[in-house]
Amino acid sequence: MLPFAKATAALGRRLGPALVDTSEEGRWAASFDSSKLSFLPEAVITPRRREEIGPVLELANKHGVPVTVRGRGTTLMGSAAPVAGGWVIDMLRLKKIRIDAETGMAHVQVGARTAEVQRAAEAQGWFYPPDPSSKEFCTIGGNIACNAGGLHGGKYGVTRDFVIALSGFLPTGEWVQWGTATKKFAAGFNLRDLWIGSEGMLGVVTDAVLKLVPAPAARWTLLTAFADEVEAVEAVRALFAQRVQPAICEFLDRDSVHCAESAMGRPVFAGQKDRAVVLLELAGGESEVREESRKMLAWAKAHSLAQRVARDRVEAEQLWAVRRKCSGAMFELGDSKLNEDIVIPMRAYPRFMRFLAGLKKSSRLHIPTFGHLADGNLHVNIMYNRDDAAQARRAEATVERLMRTVVGMGGAISGEHGIGLAKTPFLRIQHSPAQVRAMQAIKQALDPRGILNPGKMFEVFEVWKQDKLKLRLPWDHK
Amino acid sequence: MLPFAKATAALGRRLGPALVDTSEEGRWAASFDSSKLSFLPEAVITPRRREEIGPVLELANKHGVPVTVRGRGTTLMGSAAPVAGGWVIDMLRLKKIRIDAETGMAHVQVGARTAEVQRAAEAQGWFYPPDPSSKEFCTIGGNIACNAGGLHGGKYGVTRDFVIALSGFLPTGEWVQWGTATKKFAAGFNLRDLWIGSEGMLGVVTDAVLKLVPAPAARWTLLTAFADEVEAVEAVRALFAQRVQPAICEFLDRDSVHCAESAMGRPVFAGQKDRAVVLLELAGGESEVREESRKMLAWAKAHSLAQRVARDRVEAEQLWAVRRKCSGAMFELGDSKLNEDIVIPMRAYPRFMRFLAGLKKSSRLHIPTFGHLADGNLHVNIMYNRDDAAQARRAEATVERLMRTVVGMGGAISGEHGIGLAKTPFLRIQHSPAQVRAMQAIKQALDPRGILNPGKMFEVFEVWKQDKLKLRLPWDHK
Repeated sequence: MLPFAKATAALGRRLGPALVDTSEEGRWAASFDSSKLSFLPEAVITPRRREEIGPVLELANKHGVPVTVRGRGTTLMGSAAPVAGGWVIDMLRLKKIRIDAETGMAHVQVGARTAEVQRAAEAQGWFYPPDPSSKEFCTIGGNIACNAGGLHGGKYGVTRDFVIALSGFLPTGEWVQWGTATKKFAAGFNLRDLWIGSEGMLGVVTDAVLKLVPAPAARWTLLTAFADEVEAVEAVRALFAQRVQPAICEFLDRDSVHCAESAMGRPVFAGQKDRAVVLLELAGGESEVREESRKMLAWAKAHSLAQRVARDRVEAEQLWAVRRKCSGAMFELGDSKLNEDIVIPMRAYPRFMRFLAGLKKSSRLHIPTFGHLADGNLHVNIMYNRDDAAQARRAEATVERLMRTVVGMGGAISGEHGIGLAKTPFLRIQHSPAQVRAMQAIKQALDPRGILNPGKMFEVFEVWKQDKLKLRLPWDHK
Repeated sequence: MLPFAKATAALGRRLGPALVDTSEEGRWAASFDSSKLSFLPEAVITPRRREEIGPVLELANKHGVPVTVRGRGTTLMGSAAPVAGGWVIDMLRLKKIRIDAETGMAHVQVGARTAEVQRAAEAQGWFYPPDPSSKEFCTIGGNIACNAGGLHGGKYGVTRDFVIALSGFLPTGEWVQWGTATKKFAAGFNLRDLWIGSEGMLGVVTDAVLKLVPAPAARWTLLTAFADEVEAVEAVRALFAQRVQPAICEFLDRDSVHCAESAMGRPVFAGQKDRAVVLLELAGGESEVREESRKMLAWAKAHSLAQRVARDRVEAEQLWAVRRKCSGAMFELGDSKLNEDIVIPMRAYPRFMRFLAGLKKSSRLHIPTFGHLADGNLHVNIMYNRDDAAQARRAEATVERLMRTVVGMGGAISGEHGIGLAKTPFLRIQHSPAQVRAMQAIKQALDPRGILNPGKMFEVFEVWKQDKLKLRLPWDHK
């Protein structure tokens, strides 16, 4: 008999069988996220209305049942994997989107997909900038849970910067709203932002009001090549020192470019194989973009080995190919990837690039790296073959060295993925014991029975010792 | 003997007499903020280095001494008034400012004044937008404590939107840092934003990293007049519906304009006495401002009775006179002002203006109203004569009616002032019992002995029954 069979039976009576799935297939499908760590829950609840969530939490508290909330499960960190079993609440049916075109706000349910919100906004002349790479699949709720970022973070900000108000349930099952659909609010403690990034451990968000910005009338795309990583980042620093704010500033190191060029079957710039590249995009009003593009082109001619401007959106898409191809192509270097999303302050860029070069050598691993230079959020991809025990151990040691170095440089162990299970071994590199105790005190205060997403963030999970599912998810790069 | 005399003596031994002021004058000066509610503390600590704060909090915990942290004390809400006595920590000596011109960040100690930060940023081509009206006096620490806003809130955001990282002390005296000097951070619960707006009840902030934006190269100022308040706000809605984002959109109702015109001795627009006015300012790149100014002028000609464009910054300052004069001039209508900073969603503007007209009539009080229409944050000034008991009672009843209506319209009881003592009677209009309980649970978790700024936010304080100091502060409008 399953540990919470009695509670699950009570839940079925309360909500009716249509909402509570205890089938093998249903439980299996909810047992893992993109981390591919699988833990079977005892039941999956798929609410049609938010009111159905309160009773689930009340019963969970009464019977001490772990509850993990999930959207599409695109997180790589295991934040949505029900590691302690119990119940999973699947939010995908709650997916309404309403654009307030006058005020520039989107009223959404958390099961709405990010790209759908963007399209709905765009249809009314507005823009929702946060754009995690899985945006066609992932949900706003998941974005809120891990404070998702994306390419536009440097100029526009991350999910947090676009959340005006949230509503949902406290772990106890009480309905609450944090903030109003207005751009100012200074009344009481700010639990809205405490919820954002708390990975489903402090509340169940059901609805969000999102801020929109006027849709940029113009975009301008430029691809540049550099001899090596240090030259690329030094050039980028020189650009930012001119107060130019590109909407996107994507960097690819030579290893990433090599992967992309193999996949594309052609070099990014003829005669300039395996260069580090920086892909820049301006966005804004027509005249603003025209003005800034002149500065940026002059900068490119002064600093880069080669440069190409997209004449239109079709050409821009071609320039983007290198960025789109690199991630999947990395699997030629190993069957497993540790995708770390560290953040580095701008003045540490050159130092970090030199460290990375050393790390590649000393670890004898391929570590293609790309990411967002407007905000220092770099995706460091440590490639290894899982069945090669020595390689796997080197990968493990390499991640830890990376994390310690990043924090030593004044950076962050995660910029947009969160902690979940996969980064729990590193939380205490970032946070002092006092900081962790304060976080845990808050968890205890809001969730005294510890039912919401237990096992995440604070307990060290030895991801290395776990088997992963071997399957391909729709948003996987390979 | 004072209740905490023994603890104060221990503190003097620990920090030395130079840091611990127990003089009558020192205690009196720290006994009140701009609310003019005065409560004598037993000692005032003025740290020269942040390390001196930890021991104060440790001793306070040991002896159960209330601790209130203050900057310049410009808050109108009583947030910095030491209502429970005990100790005051005065942060004014901690005022260093360092601009990171490359990355566009300001590293500041919390005693730095807001306008000083703005000037330091501007000297390097950067802009720090939050601008409370007391910015020449108030400190960044105070701005963080109440999540201060200002004129630029609609387009740029409020203090919260510009705080990248905070460091300081937990109520227990432990040193912590929330966030790093990077634009992305997704590692652990977000206590940075929990601290912001918590009015000094959850921690003592000593240092902040602030985000800067490129200094706008151009500004363009337009003053417009309307027959009445409803016409003015309907016109503003039409402007925003065109996706135009003015940096500033200040509204003054006819009563506010009347006050300003009396003070200036001339009408704002010749032949258009006592009109409602809207003052608009665009800010951004040269070409961007040029483009938007054309749209805005066409809008003004279509919607307003009169309009005037400033040809240069000198003329712009003249247009601003009406806004600068109105607040002080209101004291011709009563010796006391309840300055409420409510927030209204944009679609409720016309409904709110009609409600306000009714409120003015039914209360038989003058209620000149002005504020920031880009974010709905309106300063509703209920004027009365304090010694007229009947008027004071009507003012009290009027505030409560205002607050209930605002929340009923989906708005907020405070946009930038916070709760402190003065708004405690209204907190539960905004927040449900579950919401208040969650906030109090967090307070209890982080500050188990309740030493930091006790008596604020949650306990109802009957501000009506308190005597206020009769004195003029440097930032008072009158």
